[in-house]
Order: sequence, then structure tokens, then C-alpha cells
Amino acid sequence: MADLWEGWERREKPPTLFRRFTFARYAQTREFLDGLATAGKACGLHPQNINFGTTYVNVTLEAGDSSRLSPAEEAFARQITALADAQAGTEP
Amino acid sequence: MADLWEGWERREKPPTLFRRFTFARYAQTREFLDGLATAGKACGLHPQNINFGTTYVNVTLEAGDSSRLSPAEEAFARQITALADAQAGTEP
Repeated sequence: MADLWEGWERREKPPTLFRRFTFARYAQTREFLDGLATAGKACGLHPQNINFGTTYVNVTLEAGDSSRLSPAEEAFARQITALADAQAGTEP
Repeated sequence: MADLWEGWERREKPPTLFRRFTFARYAQTREFLDGLATAGKACGLHPQNINFGTTYVNVTLEAGDSSRLSPAEEAFARQITALADAQAGTEP
């Protein structure tokens, strides 16, 4: 699933996966955050950290000791990316 | 309204008001975040930045040039504090 991690940056110690999503307007940021919360509730997962302001959301996922996500975590990350795409989220 | 700012820390350049809320469980963190989003939508305001993980939410409010919030912003800050209290949010 190489394509899934395009735009994600691997950070070590502890291993995490980080990505910044930017949006044109706060309404889109909010839609993304709401979608992320709903998706997380559905699968029982949530990012290690979310840092957001008016038009950006920085997402940090725990990658585990092996620096690899579990299948469930990978599916969650895929959903997050899709949610951003749906709001026309782009990289800075 | 001195009591309102008990627990809030003033940060300058640019002037902001910062506060960290901690919760016992992610469910409480989520309730607080959802309440904050709903309150913000109702009054058309939102914090400059929110940084959250499993059991904490760091909130930064823009304080404006005068380092004072407008009445609407102050009411929003009061709501945020009340929402945290409702989830038994405490300082670290």
C-alpha cells in the first residue's frame, strides 16, 4: 500500500506517522475533523495527537514499535486521507 | 471577571490565552471536543489552535491586540471552561 503513505512523513522515537492537511476555509477543516471523529468512533481508534487551527490539521498516528500500523490502523489512516481529499485538503 | 481566567495563562506576541485541560478517559476528551465544536458553531467563534491527544486538550484563544477578549469571545471562553468542568476536566 505504498500510495497510502504518499504525503505522510515517518517520525521516529517513538515511531509515528505525521501529516499536515490544509483547507481553504474553517468549514472544511471542521467537516474533516467531524468526519475523523466519526470514523475513529466507528473503529475504536484515534490519532495520538491532533493539532488544528482555522485552516490546518496536523495528524500524528502512533506507528507502534515496528514502525508499521496494524491493518485496522492502516484502514483508519486511509479513511483520514480520504476525508481530507473529500474536503479538497491539500498539502501546504 | 477575574474568576473566569483562573487556570488560563496569558501569552504575549501575539497575545493569546492558553489553557490545558486533562481528562481521565478519551470518551471525556471527545465529549469536551464535541461540546466545544458545537458551542463554537453556535457563536461563530473557534480557538486559534487546539492540540489534543487521548486525555488532554490544549486550547489557545486569540486575545486580540489589547490582550483582552471581546464580550463574545469571553462568553465562548466561559463556555469552554464549563464544558471541561462538566467532563471533570482538571489541570495537570
